[in-house]
Amino acid sequence: MSKTFKIGIIGLGQIGNYLYQELNLKKKDILIKTGKKIKIIGISAKNRNKKRKYKINKNIFYSNPLKIINLKPDLIFEVIGQPDGISKKIVETALKNKIHVITPNKALIAKHGNKLGKVAEINNVNLEFEASVAGGIPILKTIKEGLATNKITKVSGVLNGTTNYILSEMENSNLNFKEVLTKAQKLGYAEPGNPKLDLNGYDALAKVRILSSLSFNSKISLNKCLMEGIENIDLKDIKISNQLGMRIKLLGLTELINGKLFERVHPCLVNKKSYIGNVNGVMNAIILKGKPVGVNILQGEGAGPEATSSSLLSDLLSILKGGIKKPFGISYSKQKKLRSYNLNNYSNSLYLRFEVKDVPGVMSKITDKLAKFNISIKRLIQTPSQKSKKATIVMITHSTVELNIQRCLKMINKDKYILKSPTLIRIFN
Amino acid sequence: MSKTFKIGIIGLGQIGNYLYQELNLKKKDILIKTGKKIKIIGISAKNRNKKRKYKINKNIFYSNPLKIINLKPDLIFEVIGQPDGISKKIVETALKNKIHVITPNKALIAKHGNKLGKVAEINNVNLEFEASVAGGIPILKTIKEGLATNKITKVSGVLNGTTNYILSEMENSNLNFKEVLTKAQKLGYAEPGNPKLDLNGYDALAKVRILSSLSFNSKISLNKCLMEGIENIDLKDIKISNQLGMRIKLLGLTELINGKLFERVHPCLVNKKSYIGNVNGVMNAIILKGKPVGVNILQGEGAGPEATSSSLLSDLLSILKGGIKKPFGISYSKQKKLRSYNLNNYSNSLYLRFEVKDVPGVMSKITDKLAKFNISIKRLIQTPSQKSKKATIVMITHSTVELNIQRCLKMINKDKYILKSPTLIRIFN
Repeated sequence: MSKTFKIGIIGLGQIGNYLYQELNLKKKDILIKTGKKIKIIGISAKNRNKKRKYKINKNIFYSNPLKIINLKPDLIFEVIGQPDGISKKIVETALKNKIHVITPNKALIAKHGNKLGKVAEINNVNLEFEASVAGGIPILKTIKEGLATNKITKVSGVLNGTTNYILSEMENSNLNFKEVLTKAQKLGYAEPGNPKLDLNGYDALAKVRILSSLSFNSKISLNKCLMEGIENIDLKDIKISNQLGMRIKLLGLTELINGKLFERVHPCLVNKKSYIGNVNGVMNAIILKGKPVGVNILQGEGAGPEATSSSLLSDLLSILKGGIKKPFGISYSKQKKLRSYNLNNYSNSLYLRFEVKDVPGVMSKITDKLAKFNISIKRLIQTPSQKSKKATIVMITHSTVELNIQRCLKMINKDKYILKSPTLIRIFN
Repeated sequence: MSKTFKIGIIGLGQIGNYLYQELNLKKKDILIKTGKKIKIIGISAKNRNKKRKYKINKNIFYSNPLKIINLKPDLIFEVIGQPDGISKKIVETALKNKIHVITPNKALIAKHGNKLGKVAEINNVNLEFEASVAGGIPILKTIKEGLATNKITKVSGVLNGTTNYILSEMENSNLNFKEVLTKAQKLGYAEPGNPKLDLNGYDALAKVRILSSLSFNSKISLNKCLMEGIENIDLKDIKISNQLGMRIKLLGLTELINGKLFERVHPCLVNKKSYIGNVNGVMNAIILKGKPVGVNILQGEGAGPEATSSSLLSDLLSILKGGIKKPFGISYSKQKKLRSYNLNNYSNSLYLRFEVKDVPGVMSKITDKLAKFNISIKRLIQTPSQKSKKATIVMITHSTVELNIQRCLKMINKDKYILKSPTLIRIFN
């Protein structure tokens, strides 16, 4: 029998606590599968005495997480989840002490992954983060291993369960954004305090950054890129999309355009009959395009302690089976540095909604400006409000260059007959 | 630089030939990802001079594949595809000579996997077969690694592209089985000579056997089990299903029922609006249920040289990165031997189609017998043929025990008013 493999868990929130329980329950399973005996030798959290779902062994509790490093564990789980601060300090210190690290912390990896990956590689230890993207879907291993040697050209998907739940629920229940958000918070699908990072696309963008790096064998990009959330999606947009046979989804996308990296997160109109149009509720889904494999789709639960723990444990097994893996599939020294694609040049069909005063000549004023910027209309729906002297105008454009629409909307927005900043939703193709 | 990793390819049909080309094209990529230089040192096929899409180096061609073993390669690809014979001989001999083996040969693994896995383990070499199930979908790695430590309870899916294409095309084109089969053969979606092993469910069942073993950590079962193909699916069944809001799919399923293994392949009626109801054409899809991960779905191209090659190369990379893996995830000595679930006890809702003489009393004769066997009807459609004195009766039953329906149909089948053996399609739930 080989010596016991010692584990520390730092962070005992919902995920850390569930993981703690799973590790204890699955010791025997893990022994059978890997021949290794594991033991949790240290745990740490802010609050020792907080009420937790699964009882912890307080004899191995340390208020200062860095003390766990001193116990010389073979591996630590970092499940605090900060993009910097103590999370970064713990991970970096562990790696430098040749301790393997597993973390679901997407914010940390998206921000400091380049550096931490290098530290891991130099110290010849593993840094694994399967759970950081799409919870229980083993998407990172699929890219690094299952589809290794494929040339991946595009990755897109529903990467945030909170926003997907809210959009689905708005459609199903006919409630507006704020009402559904409150409901989501009650159900635990959205953070009770500050759900902003889910809603504004930040969470999905961190995942996109990680996916890009693995898919294109490149450094994680820290460049500015298109990030729009769902805060401005109105129930009206959901209803009109529905009439058009479409549904709104917050998508994360990354692709190479002429060798340049194009990463983005924004609401998209997708066909209701398409695969992605039917990924509803808290589900996550990812569509990969690669050569020679073609299109691969993966779907599963994107969050929650169960799904996250599935990925954390799969990382653990991979490490227990032995061998040091490069955190990003290839050596940091071989990762490309990609230049960013200029969003201004991006051309796409668009959904535009204008809220206007219902007076003569409004439509011609809008269409005149659109024409000026070479924007042509494919479809138009005008709905007057019967009570007020207002109207809603929705247009679907033909393929339109981003720079043009931004300039045009800026100009239209100045006009007095415009009652609200126009809504723009890109159409997924 | 480490020494060159020597590779042999045995079998140069569509897949072997494409693989040969890919290995040559991706040498540099593989070097970057693994630090290993690969070289093809021997190739073998029945016919040296056959016209092939990608030109082969005839200087390394051997008519006798066993001679390649004598060259002491580090690894061979077995891409002949027989369930026994030369395929088995090559794989076994290679493993015994401590040569790694990669194969897409599902028939071989389903039949001899238990033995070959043991030989690989004893000789401390790798035997990998990702491409044997669902082509380009990395489902085996997903089960062995990505979802390791999950308790998988059920796996179901569209595992055969040929039959899925035929069923989709019958629906789309309104052509009957034979006409569509001819079309599929022309397009290369069905084997021109003998497509039987695809059509009768044998191919899908081999995949089910492999999936069971990995999912349940058990020996590959060689027990008899339910295997029905699509040869008896009539255009009429497709049309009626359509009216019922359903679609016919040939599904492979495996699950544990009270600790007993229940493996089967048969046509299923699935809801048109469900996920699996929309996996059309040559696509493959797999639905995994596991704890704690929940439901995971994977979809991709199930066949063809490109998809298959993607999986063959992913196996190669896994081996080049080092470490010996157990072919079935755990040691052969730890694999359980599962007893089979008794099909007779299986209870499910059924679609039944009777072709009868259109004479008074027929319906009551049928329903009497159904009642005798405790089979109750949920829905009934009777369509008389206007020209002939025939009628088609379709019934959807409530949950019905398999033994009962088999006995009942046997009895009904004896009656003179029955013009054809009744059609039975199980409803997927």
